[in-house]
Amino acid sequence: MLNSLLQKAQLSQAVLAALSSERRNHLLIAMADQVEAHSDAILKANQNDVDRARQDGLDGPRLARLGLSQSKLKTFATGLRELAQIQDPLGRGDRWTLANGLILDRVRVPLGVIGLIYESRPGVTLEATALALKSGNAILLKGGREALSTNQELVELWRSTLAHRGLPQDLVQLISDTTRTAARELMHLTGLDLLIPRGGASLIRTVADEATVPVIETGVGNCHLYVDQHADIEMALNILLDGKIGNPSVCNALETVLINQAIVDAFIPRAVETLKPYGVIWHGDQDVLARIPEAIAAQESDWADEYLDVQIAAKVVSGLDQALEHIQRYGTRHSESIVTEHYPTGHEFLSRVDAAVVYWNASTRFSDGHEFGFGAEVGISTQKLHVRGPMGLEALTTWKTLAYGTGQTRDLGTSNSSPA
Amino acid sequence: MLNSLLQKAQLSQAVLAALSSERRNHLLIAMADQVEAHSDAILKANQNDVDRARQDGLDGPRLARLGLSQSKLKTFATGLRELAQIQDPLGRGDRWTLANGLILDRVRVPLGVIGLIYESRPGVTLEATALALKSGNAILLKGGREALSTNQELVELWRSTLAHRGLPQDLVQLISDTTRTAARELMHLTGLDLLIPRGGASLIRTVADEATVPVIETGVGNCHLYVDQHADIEMALNILLDGKIGNPSVCNALETVLINQAIVDAFIPRAVETLKPYGVIWHGDQDVLARIPEAIAAQESDWADEYLDVQIAAKVVSGLDQALEHIQRYGTRHSESIVTEHYPTGHEFLSRVDAAVVYWNASTRFSDGHEFGFGAEVGISTQKLHVRGPMGLEALTTWKTLAYGTGQTRDLGTSNSSPA
Repeated sequence: MLNSLLQKAQLSQAVLAALSSERRNHLLIAMADQVEAHSDAILKANQNDVDRARQDGLDGPRLARLGLSQSKLKTFATGLRELAQIQDPLGRGDRWTLANGLILDRVRVPLGVIGLIYESRPGVTLEATALALKSGNAILLKGGREALSTNQELVELWRSTLAHRGLPQDLVQLISDTTRTAARELMHLTGLDLLIPRGGASLIRTVADEATVPVIETGVGNCHLYVDQHADIEMALNILLDGKIGNPSVCNALETVLINQAIVDAFIPRAVETLKPYGVIWHGDQDVLARIPEAIAAQESDWADEYLDVQIAAKVVSGLDQALEHIQRYGTRHSESIVTEHYPTGHEFLSRVDAAVVYWNASTRFSDGHEFGFGAEVGISTQKLHVRGPMGLEALTTWKTLAYGTGQTRDLGTSNSSPA
Repeated sequence: MLNSLLQKAQLSQAVLAALSSERRNHLLIAMADQVEAHSDAILKANQNDVDRARQDGLDGPRLARLGLSQSKLKTFATGLRELAQIQDPLGRGDRWTLANGLILDRVRVPLGVIGLIYESRPGVTLEATALALKSGNAILLKGGREALSTNQELVELWRSTLAHRGLPQDLVQLISDTTRTAARELMHLTGLDLLIPRGGASLIRTVADEATVPVIETGVGNCHLYVDQHADIEMALNILLDGKIGNPSVCNALETVLINQAIVDAFIPRAVETLKPYGVIWHGDQDVLARIPEAIAAQESDWADEYLDVQIAAKVVSGLDQALEHIQRYGTRHSESIVTEHYPTGHEFLSRVDAAVVYWNASTRFSDGHEFGFGAEVGISTQKLHVRGPMGLEALTTWKTLAYGTGQTRDLGTSNSSPA
């Protein structure tokens, strides 16, 4: 079934790829207008989804991710207009010339057709699609069952906007089958240029393990804050608060705080006080339990898993080495932060931590496509190949090398080259 | 079993990553000296492999790939010295600053531990290892059974060179188990940062499909030459000759020539004459058979598969569209070439062909890390993610973003960001 969708997407993508960046940008602006003009219909469809999800007993955080509002739609429309202003990732490149005069031009081109498997958040249907189209790609969307009505409404809006501008509607296609069978088919859809899973850890693991098409793993963020003995305590408290509160359910939230033993008595009471108004539950090792009576004894899973909730794990460490060891063992290579005024310690932390983004005296919350200045994001890559960290437009492109010659050949038999 | 090799590699890699580029370069130069000093021992081990392979009935092209010589070793040693001169891929990057003063530094870092599964060619044990070490990575080598003695000799040389320079030997490890079981274990070795298969199409397909660790597909090159009606016939003949002769067994060789019907009678007789001294066998469609009596009728497999031999498939096409359609259907997205003097046709070919390297009036033979000026190559990527075309040092690196702050946090609750 998905094969015919893919073929339609491929044919449509060839048309889009030949379009000027001006026309791709105008498409996003037109869609922003449509989102605002049709906000009532979108919110009505969304209300249907939310009502049904509530009946089905969806938990609070997932309900929160599912729900849209006039102000959220306004924000998305503004985002689409801002994305239209960002520099086109296509057509730029590097040129070099070989000794024999052959000119090599390495130029950015679209990936082709991108698939997205995602849960709850219908905003992804706007943001990821906008990024895909701006970078010259077609997109196949497989959203969650709970967001089906909203996604159908938004995809129809994309398609009518495309049609109105004389562009192929099949640049944006929603896979209406929300079963696992369709997801599996997508994971093995030969010819799909990229599949991005966006959602919980288990969804991402399944896609990464099962897919035979290219995948970028996103978003599992077991992020740590290491409060060094030379930390500015006030700063550490602000970064802790920001990392835990104001949307704890997303991947750039803090999950564990590692505290240098030299400052534990100065830090812990104030940290407890700082987080108390938000009802944060502490889990800790023996040193923490001795200082926070209401804390729960931490299990292995407290170190290994994301809470995505108002809970935090805390551990007292002897120094930088033990902190690095803990992060190496339990981190998900997403975002890690140190607070210290001591140059050698901060320098070593940045150099030795293996993660997409490593912070020195700043909040992990900046691991985000908007904050990074990418205009939007498709997700945050926790893998090392192709793209690492927030994925913007460039993550949805590849390179092609164009070679301009005047008849160049090797000197037969004298080449040392041996490609396999 | 491989888990302990991986752990030793990871510990060793941390040491290498902290080394200056000067010390990494000196290592390559020292190895070049060692290869020359121990060439007799290497060639003796290689002779053992070749003798055994001949007894086992290995075919000619594979025997040719297996064999080393003094001059080949000299070339490899020179290559190592040249690679030492090439700019370090590590430590360079881009910096930008957010409105709140947070400085983001995106810097190139090693991938970590790289696995390589390869066949026949023992030179890979020198070249790929040199690239991995120069870019700060450890490497696990799984060579073919037929090259075991040579690979053991070369890996011992790497390890003694490392030890002699006070570096961890386990930066280079040979997996002595040459069975498929060990290959399978490598494909599922969680923690391995990259696995590169180098060899025949079936090896690459198996690794790409089965592996759960990150993989870069390399080297299947079903390359086409399109001779346009406005071609310089002399130039087209030279490019055809270069593409087919002088190592037909590698991936950048030409496999199919597509001939515009308007010049078929001018081109075919001369093409036959050009390739005749090399005993090239022609396979063709009806139009070709009508002009080359000794040609064999082409089957579907003639269009789809690489010959890697002195054979060529030929087809007459009505024009650019039919040529593009054929390449789209049968090409492996490796290297494609057009010969034409007509600007719009060449321009359209470059823009519409979806391949790693697209040539206009030049031979596909330049799709090669040496020719591209990368100093060496690990293989030629035919995928779109991470790296496309010849893989040099940069392909073995990733990015890490370092964020230098002064206590930056978001304004709680006002952020529009919603990472998943």
